[in-house]
Parts: sequence; C-alpha cells; structure tokens
Amino acid sequence: MTTSAKRAPVRIGVVGLGRLGKRHAMNIAYRVPGAVLAAACSPVDEERTWAREALPEPRIYEEYEALLADRDIDAVWLVTPSSLHAEQIVAALRAGKHVFCEKPLSLDVAECERVLAVAREYPHLQATIGFMRRFDPSYVDAYEKMAAGAIGRPFMIRSQTTDKNDPEGFFVRFAPTSGGIFLDCTVHDIDVARWFFGNARATRVYATGTIALHEGLRECGDVDNGVAVVEFEGGRLAVFYASRTMAHGNDTHSEVIGTAGALAIGHYPRANRVDIYDADGIRNECTPTFFERFEEAFLREAQAFVESVRQRRQKAQVQAGGANLPHDDAQIGATLADALEATRIGRALREALASGQPIAL
Amino acid sequence: MTTSAKRAPVRIGVVGLGRLGKRHAMNIAYRVPGAVLAAACSPVDEERTWAREALPEPRIYEEYEALLADRDIDAVWLVTPSSLHAEQIVAALRAGKHVFCEKPLSLDVAECERVLAVAREYPHLQATIGFMRRFDPSYVDAYEKMAAGAIGRPFMIRSQTTDKNDPEGFFVRFAPTSGGIFLDCTVHDIDVARWFFGNARATRVYATGTIALHEGLRECGDVDNGVAVVEFEGGRLAVFYASRTMAHGNDTHSEVIGTAGALAIGHYPRANRVDIYDADGIRNECTPTFFERFEEAFLREAQAFVESVRQRRQKAQVQAGGANLPHDDAQIGATLADALEATRIGRALREALASGQPIAL
Amino acid sequence: MTTSAKRAPVRIGVVGLGRLGKRHAMNIAYRVPGAVLAAACSPVDEERTWAREALPEPRIYEEYEALLADRDIDAVWLVTPSSLHAEQIVAALRAGKHVFCEKPLSLDVAECERVLAVAREYPHLQATIGFMRRFDPSYVDAYEKMAAGAIGRPFMIRSQTTDKNDPEGFFVRFAPTSGGIFLDCTVHDIDVARWFFGNARATRVYATGTIALHEGLRECGDVDNGVAVVEFEGGRLAVFYASRTMAHGNDTHSEVIGTAGALAIGHYPRANRVDIYDADGIRNECTPTFFERFEEAFLREAQAFVESVRQRRQKAQVQAGGANLPHDDAQIGATLADALEATRIGRALREALASGQPIAL
Amino acid sequence: MTTSAKRAPVRIGVVGLGRLGKRHAMNIAYRVPGAVLAAACSPVDEERTWAREALPEPRIYEEYEALLADRDIDAVWLVTPSSLHAEQIVAALRAGKHVFCEKPLSLDVAECERVLAVAREYPHLQATIGFMRRFDPSYVDAYEKMAAGAIGRPFMIRSQTTDKNDPEGFFVRFAPTSGGIFLDCTVHDIDVARWFFGNARATRVYATGTIALHEGLRECGDVDNGVAVVEFEGGRLAVFYASRTMAHGNDTHSEVIGTAGALAIGHYPRANRVDIYDADGIRNECTPTFFERFEEAFLREAQAFVESVRQRRQKAQVQAGGANLPHDDAQIGATLADALEATRIGRALREALASGQPIAL
Repeated sequence: MTTSAKRAPVRIGVVGLGRLGKRHAMNIAYRVPGAVLAAACSPVDEERTWAREALPEPRIYEEYEALLADRDIDAVWLVTPSSLHAEQIVAALRAGKHVFCEKPLSLDVAECERVLAVAREYPHLQATIGFMRRFDPSYVDAYEKMAAGAIGRPFMIRSQTTDKNDPEGFFVRFAPTSGGIFLDCTVHDIDVARWFFGNARATRVYATGTIALHEGLRECGDVDNGVAVVEFEGGRLAVFYASRTMAHGNDTHSEVIGTAGALAIGHYPRANRVDIYDADGIRNECTPTFFERFEEAFLREAQAFVESVRQRRQKAQVQAGGANLPHDDAQIGATLADALEATRIGRALREALASGQPIAL
Repeated sequence: MTTSAKRAPVRIGVVGLGRLGKRHAMNIAYRVPGAVLAAACSPVDEERTWAREALPEPRIYEEYEALLADRDIDAVWLVTPSSLHAEQIVAALRAGKHVFCEKPLSLDVAECERVLAVAREYPHLQATIGFMRRFDPSYVDAYEKMAAGAIGRPFMIRSQTTDKNDPEGFFVRFAPTSGGIFLDCTVHDIDVARWFFGNARATRVYATGTIALHEGLRECGDVDNGVAVVEFEGGRLAVFYASRTMAHGNDTHSEVIGTAGALAIGHYPRANRVDIYDADGIRNECTPTFFERFEEAFLREAQAFVESVRQRRQKAQVQAGGANLPHDDAQIGATLADALEATRIGRALREALASGQPIAL
Repeated sequence: MTTSAKRAPVRIGVVGLGRLGKRHAMNIAYRVPGAVLAAACSPVDEERTWAREALPEPRIYEEYEALLADRDIDAVWLVTPSSLHAEQIVAALRAGKHVFCEKPLSLDVAECERVLAVAREYPHLQATIGFMRRFDPSYVDAYEKMAAGAIGRPFMIRSQTTDKNDPEGFFVRFAPTSGGIFLDCTVHDIDVARWFFGNARATRVYATGTIALHEGLRECGDVDNGVAVVEFEGGRLAVFYASRTMAHGNDTHSEVIGTAGALAIGHYPRANRVDIYDADGIRNECTPTFFERFEEAFLREAQAFVESVRQRRQKAQVQAGGANLPHDDAQIGATLADALEATRIGRALREALASGQPIAL
Repeated sequence: MTTSAKRAPVRIGVVGLGRLGKRHAMNIAYRVPGAVLAAACSPVDEERTWAREALPEPRIYEEYEALLADRDIDAVWLVTPSSLHAEQIVAALRAGKHVFCEKPLSLDVAECERVLAVAREYPHLQATIGFMRRFDPSYVDAYEKMAAGAIGRPFMIRSQTTDKNDPEGFFVRFAPTSGGIFLDCTVHDIDVARWFFGNARATRVYATGTIALHEGLRECGDVDNGVAVVEFEGGRLAVFYASRTMAHGNDTHSEVIGTAGALAIGHYPRANRVDIYDADGIRNECTPTFFERFEEAFLREAQAFVESVRQRRQKAQVQAGGANLPHDDAQIGATLADALEATRIGRALREALASGQPIAL
C-alpha cells in the first residue's frame, strides 16, 4: 500500500444505490485508499438524495448513459438489477471504463458469452464480477492453506448459502426474475467450488428441493430449500445447500475436504465474540444477513479492484521498460469467464430441479 | 429401574467375539442390570479363550446350534458376519429366543422380507437390529426436542458417517461383501432419517461418489467417499455423506432442519472436554472410531433390549389382569421392518451410484 | 480387566443413601466388575426401602456398627454427613474394612491428622477420599498430556466450581456446617491444583468474596461467590472461583498453563453433543448439576477403588514370590494425606476471607 | 454518518510512527470519514520517510512543538513513549488542540491529576485515552446487553490480557519503564471492569505473580505472569490475569457475571472463521497479537473521536439556539479521569505485588 497511495486515484461512479449499493458507495467513498467516489447514479429520487448527503461531493446522475459520458470517471461500479448487468457492462467497456458488477453476470449463458466476446476487445480494462467470498479473510486463509498443501489433494467441497427466513417473503415476489434458488444463492457456492478446485470443469449435476414455507414459489418452479450435487472432472465432487428459511440467521459456510485433512469456513455463524450464558444454556447470536457476514469481504473486494486498476495503469506506463511489476492476477476476484461458468452450472441445476434428472455438461 | 431389578434376569448368549462382539459381551456381563451373560459362542479359539478369562462364568460354545439348544438361554446377541445375520435370526426365533442382531439385517431385500415373515410368527419375541444411534444420548435428546416441536416441522436431514482413514485399507478387502459404502456406512444415516421423519417412505434417491485414496475399491464398483440425496414423501429431503478417508477421526454427525429451527448432533467430534492450547492454536482431539463415539449408545441399547424383554414377560404374566403397564415400544430401537427399509434405500443408492441415474422407490 | 474378573469379588457396604449415596450404590451394584453390593446402611426408613427394591439382595442395616460387625463385608463406602466422616473412617479401619469416603475427610485439620495416624496402623487397607475429578476422563487426559510434557513446565492453574443457582437456597441452611464455600466447593479445585502440581506445598493464600443473592449466608460469615489465590512452592500459582449462583448450570472447569502451552478442561459445560439453532442464535444446554457432569468420574472412581483392593489382595498372596505385579498407585485417587492438605488450604482460605489478609502456610 | 460527512473535516496530526503509530495513521488517513491526516511527526528518519510515502500529503514534522504551532491542525494523536504522554497532552491542550493519547495517561498518579487539572481549563477540547476495548464490537455488544439487564445485576468481572511469548523478550528491556505487568497490561482489564461496573470505586486490591520464563524481569521487581483481585464498592469483584508467555497467541478475554446470567467476550481467541481438520484433531489458529484482535476497535475508536470533535463544534455553533443534538458522551471512550483511576488501581496492584499485602484504596 505504501507506494500505491501516491499514485493517481481511481475515480469511480457507483450505479444503483439500493441497500447493497449504498454499502459499496460508502466503502469506496471512505475506506478504499486510492479510490475517489466521483459519481453516483440512480433513477430513484430518494437514492440520489441520500448520495448528496452521505457521500463526499459526488456528481449525481439520473441516467447511466450520462455517467458513462463523464470523462472524469475511470470505472463504474454496478449494483443494479441483474437483468441490466450484461448490457451495462458492455456499455461501460465500450465507453472505456473499468467495470465492477455485482453477480450475476447474466442468468443466460449466451448473453454471458456475448459479454465475454466484447470484453476480449478491451483487454486493458478490468472487468470483475462480485463474488465477494473470494475476498473474505477466512475463505482466503483456507484457500491459501489448501494451496500450500495443508490438506493433501482436495476432492470434495460442501458449501451452503442459507438466509434467515423473511416472513414477508420479499424474495417470493422477486422469484420470477431471480433465476431460482440455485442461480440466486448457490451461484456463490458454485464459484467457491470452482475457485478451490482450480477452475476444474463441472461434468454432471443433479438437484432437488422442497418448499418448506413459501408456497408462492411453486408457480415459478422454484423452491425455498434446494440441494445440489455437482461432479467435476478428476473425480471431484461438490454438494450444495441453499435455504431461504433458516431461523437463526445467515449461515454461509463451506468445507473443502482433502486426502490429508479438511478446512471449514464459517461453520458456526456467530455474529461476534460474545457468548451469552443464561437459563437456556450458552449461546451465540448469529450473523443476521450476508451484509454482516461479508462486510469485510465487500471492502477488500473494492480495495483489490482499485489496486488492480492502478497496477494496470502502472504496467501500461512501463510497458516498454519491461520492469518487474508484482502481478496480482490471483487477487482480483472473479472474471467474466468465472461468472459465465457459474451461470452455466447454475442453469444446469435449475434444469435438473425441473426435470428430476441429472444433467451432463 | 427400581422394580425391574427384582425380576428374573434375562440370560443372554453372545455370538461372535470379534472387536465389537467383545464390547457387547463386556457390557452385558458387567453393566446391564437384569442381564446375565450366560453363554458365549465363537468358532475362533482365541475368542473363546478370551471369553473364559474376561467374562463371568459363561458357558462356552463353538457352534451356534449348540447355543440355540441351550434351554437356559433367553436371548441371543448376534455380532457375526453380515452374511449370516438373516439365517441366524430365523434360527434364533424358531428356537424361541429373543434376538438382538448387529446391523445389517441383510444386504438383500428379499431376504430381509423372509426374516420379517418368520418373525411375524413369533410376536412375543423381541427382535432388534443394532442401529445404536437410536440410543445415543445426544441423538435421543435431539429427537425429543424435535418431537416436542422445538424446530417446527422438520423437512430436511443432513447426516454423515465418516471414518478415520485406515492406511492399511482393511475395508478394501472387506468391500466385496460389505455391500458398498452406502449399505455399510450410510445405512446408519438412512435409519436416522427414517427415525426423525417418523418412518416416512423414501420415494427417490440419487448417489455419486469418488475414490480419493483406495483404488482397490474400483474393481467392485465401490467408492471411498459417497454422496447421496434421498427424497421422502411429504417434501422431505435427506443428504448423506460417507467417507473412509478422514484425517481427523470418526466424524459422525447429523442435522435436522425444521421450519422454526434446527438441531445438530455431533457437529464437532471432539473426543472429550479438553482444549489444547499450543503454538499451532487451540485444538481438540477427535473421537478416533465409532467405538469411542458410541460407547454409551451401545450400552444403553443393551439395557433397553433387556428391559424390553423383561416387560414383555411381565405383560405376558398379567395379560388376563389388564394391568396398566408402561409401554416402551418407542424405546426399543430399530425393528426388523426398520432394517428392511434401510436396506431397501441403501440398495437403491448403490444402484444409483452404479447407473448415474436417480432411482424411484 | 481380563484377569481381575476371575478373582474373588470385593463385597461392599454402602453407608448413607441420600441422592449421591443412591448413585454410588447403583454404580457398585450394576456397573463395577468385581464388586458386590453386599450391604446398605441408613438410619432413614425411606432409604432402606429404596435399597430393598432397587439393589440386588443387599443386607440392610440401620446402624453403622452392625454393618461393621458383618464379617462378609470387605469395604465400606461412606456417603454420610461430613461431620461423621472422620470417626466412621477410623471405625471402618479398626474393623478391618477398606474404606471409601466422600469428601471432605474433615473440616478440622487436627481431626484429619488423627485419622491419618490411625490409618498408618493399617497400611494394608485401602482408604480413599472421593475427589472424583481425578477419575474424570477429561481431567485424566489433560493430566497425562501435561505429565508427558505437552505444555512444558506447568506454573499456573485456574479452576472453578460453580453451581446453578438454587432459588430455594438449600445450601444456605447447610452453610453453618458446610465449612463455607471454600471448604465445600473450592476443595475440589484445591485437590486438582495439588494433583497437577505434583503435590507441591501451598505457601500463602488470599481470598475474598461477595454475596450476590443469598443474604442468609451473611450471619455465618459465608459468601455465595468466592475468589481465592493460592501460591505454591516453586513459583506456582492457582486462582480459584466458586459460585452458588450461576444461571446456566454447573460450570466446573480447570486450566493448567505451562511454559509451552495450556490445557483447559470443561471450558464450555455443554450437556451433550446437541446444538440448538433457533431465533435466539445457536446454543447448547449445560450440565445442570455435578451429577451429570461427573457421572462417568463417579463410576470410574468406584471401579478403580475395587480394582485397587483386588490388587492389594493379590500382592498379599504373592508377597513371598516377589512377582512383578502392576502397580497402580497413581490410579487410586486422593489419599487421606491429600484430603488433609486440601482441608488445610481450604481452612486457610476461610481464614483469609474472614480476616481480609493473606495467610501464610 | 449521513449528515456528518458534509461538515468540515477534523485535521489531525499523528505523533509517533512506530508500529502502532503507523496503524493509527493509516486508519486516520484512509478509513475515518470526516478526518484528514494533516500532519505526521516523528524524531525518527525512517518513520518520516514512511509517512511521506504511505500517507496522503501530510505535513511532516520532526519536532512536536512545531506541529503544535501549526494552526491548521485541529487535533493531535499521540502514539509516543508513555513517559511523554502527560506533558504532551498538556502542551496540546494549551495549544488549543483536541487530543487523543494512547494509554497510559501516566504511570504516576500525581502527574495524572496534574493533567486533569489542566484539562478542566479546556472543557471544550476533547481529550481521550486509548482504551480501545471500549470500541471493540464484541465488548460493546456485551456492555449493551448488560446495560439492558440481560444478566441481572453484574457483580463480578474476570478479565485477562495475555500475549504470545516473545522469545527475544523485547518487553524485558522495556520493563524498567513500563510500570510492570499490571500497569502495562492489566490496565486494560481495569478499565473494562470500571466501565462495566459503571465507574464504581475500587476499595482494596491484592496481587501476586511469578516468573515463568523471563528471569530478566526479576531485577526490576516485575513478573511475566500476574494475578490480581480487586474489590469494588457494592460487593463487586474483579479478577485479572496478565501473561507475557502464552504459546498460542494474544488471548484477551473478559467475562461479566451477573445475578441472572453472564457474558463472555473473546473466550476463544480464534483468528478467523477457519477450522482446520487434520491428524492432530480440529483446531483454530489464534490472533497472534493485539493488533489483529483489536484492529476494528482501533478503527472505531478513531471514528468515534472524530465524530465527537465534530459534534462539539456543532454544539458550539448552535449553543444559543438550544438545539437538541444527539449527545454521545457514552461513546467517546475513556476520559482522563478514567485513565487516572486505572493508573491508581494499577499502582496499588504493583504495590501489592511488591509487599505481598492487600492495599486499601
């Protein structure tokens, strides 16, 4: 960080200021060295008002196109509805902006592939999809231990994404466009498995599920609890679980099992370091949502993105000199290609759920 | 226990004195009120010698038939090779003995059904298959909490049976007759799921697996790590994991998830209450094998069997009087019918593993 | 256990059949190989009635002297009021009986010394005071790890004995004769410290305390929460905590800290292996009383006592032959000398509490 | 945070850029909304060079007096040797600067009192001593639960500060000026106890200790493991433990025990959410130093200080209007008076250690 702090800052425009967008904006504004929150864009009045008050002097845009036209913006940060991601990424790249986009890239495999094709035309631009677990300190620690051989050869992943039940069932209304539980939730676990398995290709998937509480999901073929099995090349396996109906909180955890040991990340989703002793026993409160669980990951993700953009610039400047720059490719999170593969597997799971049959990839 | 201790003891003959057989024999001999270890039977010289020295004055038999002919024996306790279970149970019943038999009843569904048919002729005889988790204090506590409504409606079970890797691969030599990992290991998890789901019928299963270390399993179509998904009527799901290759010990745990909470049994397989603080951090040693994990369960299983036989006698004596006896049917463990269903599901998993297709039941 | 099971049993008379006495009697009757529960003695009608029904054919005595006169009794097992222990032990030894006695030996140091003087006349008789933690599997495991050098040189013990609050304050009525919180509760922690510190001598003690809930203790100078610091020779320290007012259960734990690591025993007093997930978080129920926490320790204590008596007999029989018998001195629990030292330290703590000054020993 | 971000920033000069000073500087520079790292001061060349490279355009000073003369600096942030704290705070106040100072205020009670006397002349200036646990999210959560009545009436605190052993014994060289283990380490636990006990007055203290590894401490009367008991008015007790010799890491934890429950903070000092399963069992790595343990606390401490300064300004601006501003006095950390009391208790512990006698306060 020492030297980077002296370099020109990366000027970022955040697009979409819903609950998660606000968090990204605050991180970029106040906690990412080398970043300037230069602009904020939202079609929603309330969100623009918030931006004026909470953020440090950003230019405020109502339209995405106007923001893209702003020559002072180096990068866009998309926290918009999933259905807009693909076209907004393409537009950003064509406007010469680096781009960070919340997951998913797209729920449609062909659309993902079109975005990749465009991105290949702009190799000097950073394009990252927000699979934030790749920046969570515990996931990173486990990954590094695994990579250093601590558990022998890893051959199995178990991973889950489960949310505290929302009695109002917000996600039920969201279900017709969410892509279903596997594309909406399990996609994070899919990305974890691919990351830990070194981008191994998935070969076959199976899925099933049930509706525990939210009958409203039935009409769009979705479930509120889903189970998936994914086989990867090389005899590697992954088992995923996703739930919308947990009583205790957001309980995201993963395990990687190897021939000489295993690593578990987040086995008990305790909210903090407090133990409560009372007449009911000893208990821990749990992380209520993924915001609390991955607060640090969201921040590090933003820091890594900004650092990566600055290193790209530095490389560009010294390209003739052949200087030995630190290469940080392992640290910049999920690529568009990673996002494409996650969507491909997630769609196959959706198909397996609907058909009751395993799907070969 | 107060009154039962005065009643005539149950005279038991243990058959098979391998490692597990010796443990059963010691429990019956010294730790089960109301039981008398009256006889021990083994074709192995060393085992009979052990019985003479370690057990309190049992009659020693080399042949099972001779033990069955002993009029002083009330019950037989079978800890013999799986392939003998069915015929030995039938012979015991025909000889008028109550019978406890280690799992499995049989690896063959039709054979299981034949034993059930015979047993129906002897309704006054107790016949129990040794799914010992039904007697583990933690499993029982979780079951009772669930039954009392603590977690709402249970709709999902996750359960695993994993063993510390045996570098000598004893189980590889045993593989051709073990029935494979699902019939040998997962059968316990199947029984847990059926027990917690109130004997719900399984409707469809899927399975896959991999060989992490023991290539010798390949020729008999077995794996050393297997994953299974079982759907039960009423939208209930179970996910099972079995492994022969854990580094840290026997790690048997189960979770039951309901609409208002969840219960986990044995999440961390710590061996005891000791935490070790050293330069590597803080650690717990783990239960090395299922013996240590289920020591108490094996004992309570034996106590419950003996108590059940004594209550049957008492009922028989007072049958005319219509006395109000405590009925303990929920406490006597897995019936022959439970064992049949476990085998039926286990065989379907084996078929699913071989075919790569879900199997309807 | 193999060979011992063939030797003549130890015939035991249990004296005192209150709540703890009943447990000891049931263990001896049904779970200790080589023991026969030959007699039971109580001045209380209800307790003798219980003995007739629950125990296997014991002779029933109302008077201790009558039991001592019974030539068929090899050993007495005293679970009587503390004030009777010293004279009952002496009488047992003079009657030629081995003796197990619940703690404390006596609240009076001089009286402890008189019992030791008598016991020296009967070196062939086993005399054990019931500091059951010495038989708890977790304490034993930690002790063995420490003895094997796992934590370097141990120099500090922290240990606590805390009970779930009894709103009816039974112990308040018991306070005038209990000796106070340090002699009643902390005495177990004192014994743990002495055991782990290899019988090091205590040199100075300090204590303080408070009344959190039970004002009735004030008139006898007692507290319901007490803290003690004990210095041992060689620069070793112990810190103790005792409480009568815990909300969550019996929380007995100990730590031994060394120059290369530490060991904690019972840090979380979870009742079993069940985790409960609900809207309040994740919790464990706790061991409600010391009975549940030390159930296994009480049993192993009895087994060790019986085994020790049998080995003493065997030694006596082969004394001329010089046979190489296993010596089990480390396994037979707290001696009368250990109990004397525990009382000596406990009394000093009581004096420190009363005076507000450290007491040199 | 919304409105505060629009107000004029607080311009801070950090003084002292050792390991902890660098961390504070980076927090202020990049992670505290509303703060500007305006200046950095150090007599050490290397540290000033670091400041030039790592920090965003601060003015660099070699001498503290020069920084105080800088009219653009609103507040100073002292991370200097303890012996300088008192005079530097006084000089800052006299120069009209708000001041944050790392603990301790001073090792000398009279000197603490002199600083308080000066501070009383500048009531409009914020003066905070860095007891960062008051900002740790887990400590804050426990405090709030206690304050809300979750554990009834709190009557006992147990708290410890233990460091991973430094085989090179840096702190031994530091011992002659550190004030000894209680003033250097336990002072944090003292502050926790006073905070949780609502600033109750300590009435009597006792202490003892031992040298486990670092014999070099003996000549200055210090120990590497110390134990302290502090009695507070109202029958409240605290027990403290400090160690320099832990094998597993920095293990800082605290418990507050009440009449209806207890709260523990940091019982297991796990470094993150990773569990490691291998042939040694299941383990967690631990926080190596207080930096990792209290990283978030240091940040929130700085954020709270800055927010407090801004609110003071706002109050000053609206003083005539009587506007209803949020008052945040409970959130701005330890005052000079808190630091004085911590020193008073710490010195009494030192005296108790030296004399072997309890010390009345």
